[in-house]
Amino acid sequence: MENSVTKLLKIKYPVIQGGMVWCSGWRLASAVSNSGGLGLLGAGSMTPDILREHIQKCKAATPHPFGINMPLLYHEIEGMMKVIVDEGVKIVFSSAGNPKTWTKYLKDNDITVVHVVSSSKFAKKAEEAGVDAIVAEGFEAGGHNGREETSTFALIPQVRRATSLPLIAAGGIATGAGLLAAIILGADGVQMGTRFALAEESSASNEFKQLCISLNEGDTMLSLKKLSPTRLVKNEFFNQVNEAENRGADVDEMRELLGRGRSRIGIFEGNLSEGELEIGQIASIIRKIEPVDVIMKEIIAEYTSTLERMAALTRF
Amino acid sequence: MENSVTKLLKIKYPVIQGGMVWCSGWRLASAVSNSGGLGLLGAGSMTPDILREHIQKCKAATPHPFGINMPLLYHEIEGMMKVIVDEGVKIVFSSAGNPKTWTKYLKDNDITVVHVVSSSKFAKKAEEAGVDAIVAEGFEAGGHNGREETSTFALIPQVRRATSLPLIAAGGIATGAGLLAAIILGADGVQMGTRFALAEESSASNEFKQLCISLNEGDTMLSLKKLSPTRLVKNEFFNQVNEAENRGADVDEMRELLGRGRSRIGIFEGNLSEGELEIGQIASIIRKIEPVDVIMKEIIAEYTSTLERMAALTRF
Repeated sequence: MENSVTKLLKIKYPVIQGGMVWCSGWRLASAVSNSGGLGLLGAGSMTPDILREHIQKCKAATPHPFGINMPLLYHEIEGMMKVIVDEGVKIVFSSAGNPKTWTKYLKDNDITVVHVVSSSKFAKKAEEAGVDAIVAEGFEAGGHNGREETSTFALIPQVRRATSLPLIAAGGIATGAGLLAAIILGADGVQMGTRFALAEESSASNEFKQLCISLNEGDTMLSLKKLSPTRLVKNEFFNQVNEAENRGADVDEMRELLGRGRSRIGIFEGNLSEGELEIGQIASIIRKIEPVDVIMKEIIAEYTSTLERMAALTRF
Repeated sequence: MENSVTKLLKIKYPVIQGGMVWCSGWRLASAVSNSGGLGLLGAGSMTPDILREHIQKCKAATPHPFGINMPLLYHEIEGMMKVIVDEGVKIVFSSAGNPKTWTKYLKDNDITVVHVVSSSKFAKKAEEAGVDAIVAEGFEAGGHNGREETSTFALIPQVRRATSLPLIAAGGIATGAGLLAAIILGADGVQMGTRFALAEESSASNEFKQLCISLNEGDTMLSLKKLSPTRLVKNEFFNQVNEAENRGADVDEMRELLGRGRSRIGIFEGNLSEGELEIGQIASIIRKIEPVDVIMKEIIAEYTSTLERMAALTRF
């Protein structure tokens, strides 16, 4: 499949694995790149030294392209960018910050830059900043999320109209039918977070993965809206947040309640009651923890069979 | 296009116009039915006498099937049901209430019953209650909405797995590409509310329609969550609600703030600051007020051209 996303990123299938905190280390990213997609290291939960180690291990584990997801509001961003350039990384997906700040620096170092947005307005700003492609992520996505709450179904056609850049859809997409539906809505490829967070090679704890494959619809909710909206599993921590929000707790109280390191203790250490359990709405469709190559084959097989099924539909 | 939805409802295209308060009178419903879709009268904003008048006018205006959207929590529901049966209506879309209460009565009167749900759990309950088809409506839809906030992209594949009944997708769908994407995700047809609320034949005020075709992404928000979650345009009334919610106002205060009749004064009377302006996220893709036949032709033409475009995609 040759399209603007596969050409830009030099991959076989237009399927990108989201670079997620505490899930996306070198094992996951290299497995996805070895399966024909694009693996991303999730730098948001790493230090510069740890990132360097993961880049080196990823290079050793795959001959294929891989990238880094880099939240631009990261507190030691200069150190991270130095590692990325030093190690000759070729692709950066930037998120959570202004794309103007780092895009030129990365492009000057021959790095392909893809920026994650939650609206057409931010897509246009990213295009003006000179990025090579856009990820447009809907409300149903896990973890940090936009303030406008636009869903994938409503967002993708609008971002498609707002920019001519290669467009990657994210949020609620976990299957081959989802890949095809996203393409129909205007995307050139997809980024899947939740599906790969629950792969064998993900560095999330087994406790977290087992919980996520047992979730039902409605078991995640966009939360922490007075701080930074984040989609979480409804656990004890979520209930505390919800109770505080319902009685009108202010930003300071919410910040104190959140504290520090909750995504680590939840996702990585498996503390299911006190942790911040970031996962997408589509978790409730995933019922097994499987290796990445099995997941990718299933996605591509379903994509193809859905295309075949579609060929039988009436043209008016 | 012969499928389970077109056969059940005896329509040419699997496109249903949502039965919306203050928008969906006999002019809109008959125009949609005359264009090959299924028009619905929105009984939620009518009295029994007004409903009877609209049914009679709709019968006179179209030889094709049409239906009624009937919220089951309506305060004079017995009177409405009597009118529906008396007038020989053949199709009822029930919503906002327990499908067990009225489905048998309607079926005993040879009426096809379709129930609107926001989750797989409610879809299964509706199937158990004996309905003929399901509308699964996502978070991005306008007006009253589910509590679980599951988006259309995540909801449709899950409801598809939960029931074998004919499945109609709703929420965020306004175009032919949206129709095809919904089918790819597992639906047999779609219900479009926002697109037809902004048609010429809609009985919404011109002020409301003009505002809606100027909205940008992020200009609607799910609100009133302590009462019944409702997607609204962010106007002055919304801002009052939002301020009250942020400081932890309780249910009683919210109920007093809402008052009565706000959807009428907003949608029907065109009071854009004090009214409850119910519209879906996808409004920001709609830039013109057009007659229903133009809208339906555009939807079907885009559906077909998208199918053609997809035929060129690589099968792996």
